[in-house]
Order: sequence, then structure tokens, then C-alpha cells
Amino acid sequence: MPDERVARQLAFLAEADKLKTVLRRTPITDGSRAENSAEHSWHLVLFAMALAEYGPPLMNVRRVLELLTVHDLVEIDAGDTFAYDTTANTTKAARELAAAERIFGLLPVDQAAWFRACWDEFEGNVTAEAKFANALDRFQALVLNMKSDGGSWRSHGITREDVLRRMEPVRVQLPQLWPVVMEVIERFGAAGVLG
Amino acid sequence: MPDERVARQLAFLAEADKLKTVLRRTPITDGSRAENSAEHSWHLVLFAMALAEYGPPLMNVRRVLELLTVHDLVEIDAGDTFAYDTTANTTKAARELAAAERIFGLLPVDQAAWFRACWDEFEGNVTAEAKFANALDRFQALVLNMKSDGGSWRSHGITREDVLRRMEPVRVQLPQLWPVVMEVIERFGAAGVLG
Repeated sequence: MPDERVARQLAFLAEADKLKTVLRRTPITDGSRAENSAEHSWHLVLFAMALAEYGPPLMNVRRVLELLTVHDLVEIDAGDTFAYDTTANTTKAARELAAAERIFGLLPVDQAAWFRACWDEFEGNVTAEAKFANALDRFQALVLNMKSDGGSWRSHGITREDVLRRMEPVRVQLPQLWPVVMEVIERFGAAGVLG
Repeated sequence: MPDERVARQLAFLAEADKLKTVLRRTPITDGSRAENSAEHSWHLVLFAMALAEYGPPLMNVRRVLELLTVHDLVEIDAGDTFAYDTTANTTKAARELAAAERIFGLLPVDQAAWFRACWDEFEGNVTAEAKFANALDRFQALVLNMKSDGGSWRSHGITREDVLRRMEPVRVQLPQLWPVVMEVIERFGAAGVLG
């Protein structure tokens, strides 16, 4: 029989598998279905690896990868809250806090604290690594919406101003990628996808 | 308009999205559907973070996370080759090599070489980081099959000897997790799931 520590680690890893069934509003690029939060997290890690050069010079890339891997785990209990749903966003913090307690609490105590600190750091959005990770989280959704012909913008009546506000962290943290954002908003605005 | 370098990075990241549609033989833990290779890669990164203590003392964890994030990208062209399909495995290397050339070749030249080196390192299975990553790749499939009541073993007539051979890297690289493997093989053997 595996020892208690291994058993707790495996309980956490098996529970984490459920993130594969949490659906986001953004479709995958072929438009065939909604993206789930597990594959979204993988995609963000790949974004971080490919776009790390646009982060600040002393950024700890390992930490960015860790934050992005962990950042959505609370959605297993709390669900994905659509970025443009203002009602759901008022209860989001409380729902996610309870989820963090339960899900990270499956781990051995030392690791529960470490994983929780990853999630807190991402949510706090204060460190260079968290700011970079949060900006990528916004930017990746734009890339998927761009590639799926408007994606969640089209189906939810989103405006140029909504997207501009949502992408503000990209303007601040990833200025070299801002021309992409502006070009996409302009194009989908002109096409009538963004109101 | 974004500059050429950004455009190539985005072309690669958009292409990588297709890994979300490559299906593996192993089901997710609720048994509802096959796991895809993108969410599988995310799960492996989380495995590496939670189980890093079982790797060698000087292991570079950042490198492990990078290898695991990149290791299945070639499946976008080459498909997932079932571990126990000996015929498909004879052509796997050539198919994956061509895929690596094309997919990493979407990136700017310096990054194409760096990502290709990640994939080569994982496949080479020589460095401590690659050995740890490869062993986790085997172990995660066992955990999913265990949690989904036999998963791909049940549907493909797999034997105890097949699984023992497949899990050999776990015995060598992750000896502290070997009791889990033995217990699972014993249990599913006794239940008649493994021949």
C-alpha cells in the first residue's frame, strides 16, 4: 500500500482531472466545441514559454508556468465565470475561496500551503510573474476568439469597449503585443462582430 | 500590424491549439470520454509539480515542466500512437520527426531550435529531467486507468505483463511510487480486467 503522503498527492491529482470537464465560453480554434479549463491552462503555459521575452527582464519563468498550471483549479467547484458576466462575478471570489480550501486541502499540509500560495499569487496580481500570467490569460482568449471567427464575442453581444477594457492588462504588461489586440478589435469591429 | 516575429509566434500558438483535438486511448477519470493530448500535457505538468520530490535532488523542475508541455505537440500531425500498438509504433518515429520539423518550424528560427531541443530531450530520455518526465507520462496513464475502472486496459485486452513492461520507467525513476503500480496491477488482475 502507498503511504499516506503519496495517497494524498494522488487524491489531489485525480481530483484535478475534473478540470477537463469545466467548459469556458471561448471555443477552440476550429470552432467545434468550447475550450475546457485544463487544456486552456496547458495552452497558457505554452504561451508563456513562447512569449516570455515580452515579460520583464528578471521575471521567474518557472513561477509563471506554476501559476498558470494552478490558476483555474478552483473552477472544479466554482465553475468558469464568464468574464463579461457582471452578476456572476460578484459571487466569484467567495465561491473560489471555498474551492481553494477544499481542493488544495486534499494535499499533504506543506504542499497544500505551497499550491494555495500559487493560486493566491495569481489572484493577487501583484508580482511580475502574476501580472504576466494574468495578461496572458486575457491575451490567449483574444487569440482563440480571433481564430474562431469571433467565438464568445459573437455569441454574447460583446462590444469593442468591453474587449478594450478586458485587454487592458495586455496593453500595460505586454505592450509589444498590443498592436495585435488593436488590429483584432478593429477588424472584428468593422465586420460587425463587436458592437 | 504585428511584426514578423510576433506573427510567427502567434502562428505556432494557434497551430498548437489543434492538440486539443488529438484523442488518446485513456479516458478521463469520470469515464465520459477519451482524454485529449493537450489536457493530458497539463495534467502531467501538475503531476510534476506535485511529485517533484520523488525526482533526483538536482533535477531542474522548470525543465521538466517545459519538456512535458512540449512533448506531445508532434501528435498534431502524427496522431497519438497507442502504447500497446506494435505495428503503429514501427512508423511512429518517422511520422513524429516530420511533424516536429513542420510545427516547430512555424516559430522564429531561434525559438524553433529551442522548442525542438525540448522535444528531442524528452524523446532522447537521457537527462534526469527527461527520464522523470517520461516516467510521469507512464504513471499518469495508470492513474487514469485506475480511476476509470480499467479504462484503456479493459477495452484493448491488456495483460499484467503488458502493464508491468510499460511501467518499468516508474520502477526505475520513481521507486517511491512503485507500490501504487503494484497494488493497481494486482487489483485489476484479480478483478479480471488485466489478463
